[in-house]
This record gives sequence, C-alpha cells and structure tokens, in this order.
Amino acid sequence: MFKAEKSAMAAALAITNSVVERKNTIPVLQNVLFERDEAQPGKLLARFTNLDIEAAVRFKAEIDSSFEAFTVPAGTLCDIVNKLPDGADVSITGERNDKLTAVTVKSGRSRFRLLVLPASDFNKMKFGDLPYSFGLPAADFAAALASVGFAVSTEETRYYLNGIYLHPAEDGACMVATDGHRLSKRIVRTEIDSATPGIIIPRASLRVIAKILPKEGSVGIEVSDTIIRITAGETTLTSKLVDGTFPEYQRVIPADHQMIATIDIKSLATSIDRVKTVAGERGRAVLFSFADQALRLTVNNPDAGEAEDEVTYEGEASLKIGFNANYVADALAHLSGDRFEIGLGGEGAPAVLRSVGGTRENLIVLMPMRV
Amino acid sequence: MFKAEKSAMAAALAITNSVVERKNTIPVLQNVLFERDEAQPGKLLARFTNLDIEAAVRFKAEIDSSFEAFTVPAGTLCDIVNKLPDGADVSITGERNDKLTAVTVKSGRSRFRLLVLPASDFNKMKFGDLPYSFGLPAADFAAALASVGFAVSTEETRYYLNGIYLHPAEDGACMVATDGHRLSKRIVRTEIDSATPGIIIPRASLRVIAKILPKEGSVGIEVSDTIIRITAGETTLTSKLVDGTFPEYQRVIPADHQMIATIDIKSLATSIDRVKTVAGERGRAVLFSFADQALRLTVNNPDAGEAEDEVTYEGEASLKIGFNANYVADALAHLSGDRFEIGLGGEGAPAVLRSVGGTRENLIVLMPMRV
Repeated sequence: MFKAEKSAMAAALAITNSVVERKNTIPVLQNVLFERDEAQPGKLLARFTNLDIEAAVRFKAEIDSSFEAFTVPAGTLCDIVNKLPDGADVSITGERNDKLTAVTVKSGRSRFRLLVLPASDFNKMKFGDLPYSFGLPAADFAAALASVGFAVSTEETRYYLNGIYLHPAEDGACMVATDGHRLSKRIVRTEIDSATPGIIIPRASLRVIAKILPKEGSVGIEVSDTIIRITAGETTLTSKLVDGTFPEYQRVIPADHQMIATIDIKSLATSIDRVKTVAGERGRAVLFSFADQALRLTVNNPDAGEAEDEVTYEGEASLKIGFNANYVADALAHLSGDRFEIGLGGEGAPAVLRSVGGTRENLIVLMPMRV
Repeated sequence: MFKAEKSAMAAALAITNSVVERKNTIPVLQNVLFERDEAQPGKLLARFTNLDIEAAVRFKAEIDSSFEAFTVPAGTLCDIVNKLPDGADVSITGERNDKLTAVTVKSGRSRFRLLVLPASDFNKMKFGDLPYSFGLPAADFAAALASVGFAVSTEETRYYLNGIYLHPAEDGACMVATDGHRLSKRIVRTEIDSATPGIIIPRASLRVIAKILPKEGSVGIEVSDTIIRITAGETTLTSKLVDGTFPEYQRVIPADHQMIATIDIKSLATSIDRVKTVAGERGRAVLFSFADQALRLTVNNPDAGEAEDEVTYEGEASLKIGFNANYVADALAHLSGDRFEIGLGGEGAPAVLRSVGGTRENLIVLMPMRV
C-alpha cells in the first residue's frame, strides 16, 4: 500500500501519546487513521482523535494504487516505528480477505502484522465554518502558553476557568488564565480582527498545542465560537472550546499601586523554597514583611515549626502581607529576566508582579492570604 | 549545642529518604536522633530507623558543653540543610523549658525552629553479638547487588525469596536471588569463613545498602543469624534478615548443555524490544527459533497482532523455545560485555546465560515458557 522513511513515519506518529489513549473501551479511539491527502498527491495524512481534539499530520510516502484508508492501533504502531533503526525504510502492505483485515509493517529483518479497523469507523469531528483567522509567532505563542497556563483552574465546577481565555486586544492576542487565587496575562503581538470572538482553549488542549509548535516561524489560527484550529507546518490540530463565559478579569487587576518594591527573582525564589520546608500540606501561607529594604519571609506551622529568611528590595514599601508559598514560587518561575517589581495596595489588596524591563501588559496578579 | 559545615550535615542526612518515612503514625519514627559519638569526641552521630533498618552516620561538629541528645523530623531537616547555600555553616541551638523542647537551626539570614522529641523515645535496634565478619570490595558488591537483585521475588507468600541469599563459597561470597522464573548468581571474591551462616538480605534493605556503598575501597560486613551490619566509611547500616530458608538453588542450574549459542547482547536486546511492542500485558511470551545461525524471535498476540525479528548467532543450536520477553530483557541488561552465551537443554529445560569472557560462576538461569 505505501512505503515511507522511518523518520517521516516517526514524525507523523509523534503526537500519538498526547492525543490517543492506549487503552480505550472504544477500540477505534486507540487507532490512527491513514488516508490520502486529497490536496497533495504523494502525501498521506495520519489522523488522531480523542473526540475533543483531532490532529492530522501530513507526511511523504510512496503510495501505490492498492492503497485504501485504514486504521491501526496508534500506540503500538508508534512504538514499532520508534524502535526501528534510524534511516530505515518502512513498508506497509494490506491483507485482504474480501475486505482489508490486517496490514504488515516491514523494515529490514523486522515484520509486524497489525489488525485493522475500517476507516469508516474513525470519528471525524463535525463543525461549521471557521470565520476568523490570524497568525501567531510560534515562539511567542509557546512562551505565552507556559507563562499563562500555570494559572488555569483545575476546579471542575468552575469549568469556565478550566482553560486559557484568548481574545483580541489593541496590539495583539491577549491570553489570560485565573483560578481565583492568581491570574496571569500575556499579550502576543499580532494583527487580529477586533471582531474575533473571545474563546476559552481547554486545559487538556494546551499541552497538545505546546507540543506541535515549532521553535521558529509562525502558526495559523482559525476560530469559530466552538472550535480552534492551529496549523503548524504539516500538522493541523482542531480542538473544541470550553462552552462558557470567562469572567471580566480586568476588574481584579489594580490600575495603580500605593507601593512598589523591586526584588531579585532568583534570591526570592531560593528564600521561598527554604521557608516552605516547614509549611504543612494545607497551610502554605508565608508572611512577607517589607520594611527598610529588607523583606522578611516567615512561616509559622504549629505542627512542624517556624522558618524565617530575608532578601533585600528596592523601593519604599512598608507592609505585612501573606501569600501562598507555592503560588509565589509558580509566579516567579514564569517571570522573565533577573528582577521583578511587585505593586502592593495593602494587606488585603491583590499584588501585581511584572518583570523589570518587560511589557507592562504582561503581569501576574496574586491574591493575598490571611496569615 | 553544635555547629557544623553544611556539606557535613548534608552528607549525614543524605540517607534520610531511603530509611525514614516522612509521614508515620508514630511521630518519632519520622525523626533523626543526634547524639555524641562516644568513640570519637568532636563528632556526632545522626541515627535513622524504620525498625527494620537502622543507619548511623558520623560527622564532624563543633560541640559545646550544652549539647544533649535530641530528635527532630529528619525529612524537614534534610530539606532545610539541602536548601542552604553551599559552603555555609549551620548552627543548632537548644530551647529549654525545664527540658529541651525545640531547636533553632541558623545559617546566614535563614532561621528555622523545629520541635524536638526526646532522645529516649528513639527506637534503637536490639540484637546480640555479630560473630562473623568479612570485607567486600565496595564496587564488586554494588555490581553484584544490581545484577542479582533484579531476580528477587516480590511474592509476599514466598517470603524466603524476598531477598538476596548470601553464603560463603570456595572463593568468595556467593549472592543468589530467584523468583522461580529466573535466577541470578554472582560470586564476589573475598576471604570468608566457611562457617559463616547463609543469610537472606531483605529486598527493602538492598536499595539502602546500594546507596551507602562508596565507589572504591572496601566495606566491612558483620553477620549473625538475624542481623547484617555494613560499615562503609562514616556510615553503619544494620538490617534485620529474612527469617526463612532459601531453597537449594543449585539443583535448578544445569551442569552442562546440549547446545550453546553465542549472541550479541545489544542486537538481541533491540530485537526483543521491537517484538515486545505487540505483546499483551499478560502474554509476554516470545518464541526463540534457533536454526542455521539465525535466531528468529516471534510474538503472536491474538488481540494485537504478530511480530517477528531476527539476529544472528554462533554455535550449533537448533531448537524452538519460549521465554518471557521482559525476563530476557532484564537478564540481558545485567550481563556485562558485548556478547553472551546461552546454554540450552531442550524446549522444557532451563537456559543458562553467561557473559562471554566472564567468570563461569556468574550466571543467569531462565525458565522456558510454553508458547
């Protein structure tokens, strides 16, 4: 039926473990569909689905006239191809018995026979037009997914927070996530139609999107109210969106601050990591005491003990405020550069963290915690 | 109470996670005991126990006259010390309130207060004399633990197989493990009294022993019928033994073979890894067909498909015999050098694997599997 280079097959199957479950009670959902690419003769499409996300990867193959579309277990085929020697050719031939019942995968002295399920059983996603489209620089998009994604909520009851909200902003695509305790926001510069609807990309799709983004160049995005499609090189990923309304997040971002302190990111991260050692599973609260350019961190856990550490800061802040140690650590891990500034309004007001030298619009908001 | 270098404290606490559970319903079992080393003034002992294994690590400290033995949570202290800057000094002072209630750990601008439990609550293992002693080259002992340990049984009902059997042999200490499906045996050359009892070192202790072995030099072993003690540098590890009788394993090792084939280890490992892809969770059987210097591996799994691969061998073998793919892979991973020989007696007879150029006494036995 067809012959391809090992590297081409391996590239086409690389997304398998991100989309397809190896054990599924519905057998065809374990399978990859191979079919002709109608647009490009001489190429095949490998298709994967978990009913929420669909991926199609185009790859070069020598296709003979006996070819017909078929599905085989994706995980098994992916393992087989990865274990073949580099540089090998892989040939796939069909076994007909009235209809196609199995395929044989051959390469060198290795031979595998896999049972097929009919191509017609494969579930293709049904959706209408994707009327809005724009491009995103792949590296910026990947960075934004990482530095916003950590704040996505995992609370299933607040399903409208279980993803990244992407909407058109003045100078690009704005991406936001929050779980009610912290919020992260980033702008990816691009030209985008202001009529593009705001969409919520589900948590489960973020990981798969990150996986297909190339290091350089740009990717194409198409959206409707219910679907996002991302085209990156030979891969097209189509994902359902979260059907909900993202809250008006702008209201929780303070416009200005009574106090601003500038702190070294690595020093604070090290200190937080130290004082966290005595924090319990539940009580992750760290008290931040800003006074005279010395920020003292204190943890007091009646079950385990106390911890105290200190870092210097620049600025006129003078305040005692509590934060969840893990949330601060997460935030610091997603700020770029060496230093950041924290804008404070008072012990009950949300704090705003920004990289020194970064875009003002890229920020993380942390809600304080009573200590 | 005392002051020590961070590196000395970190080294003393390095064994924590191997011996001490972080969450234990008996709080003192989470703790490390610090006490004076009666034999060496100017040094302290850090002691750890899980009631089956006890470790004592000696370290240098500046001890002042106020010192008294105490226990604190080992996991927390280990985390704290590891997170202090390299090269720092650590000082520990006591907080008395009629009796010692807490200690303060200070280093640079970091300060931690930990609650103590009395030293008298710490469970020290009780045991009699250890009448037999011998030395083992540390690197050989570590290699033997790894290449025998993989065959240890995890079946709790066969508790006498849940460890490595060590007994005196003509030219050293013989170490053996088996789970009934495979057996691995190694001799570590040393002088050992032939009256030394055969002992079974429990599975859980093997990992801890491996952890304390230095890369060079030798370690001291002392044993009784119920206890093994290993002294490696500043660390002493005492472990209970499995109270059972190891079977007469010599009977399952065939003395000679009808056929011997010599095979490249890496080639066979790669081929097994390939054909395993279609093997199910249960049916891991691979058929080995030796004929005319070509060894064909075949897996036939009605649920998933078939796989076939081929490697060359030297020798006059001509036989079809089944093995568990994972057991062969494990065995190959623990044979040294580039090539091994497999001694075969027939499709129902155990096979014996030895590294080409290795000691004849170091071997792995694999039971065949009906395919």
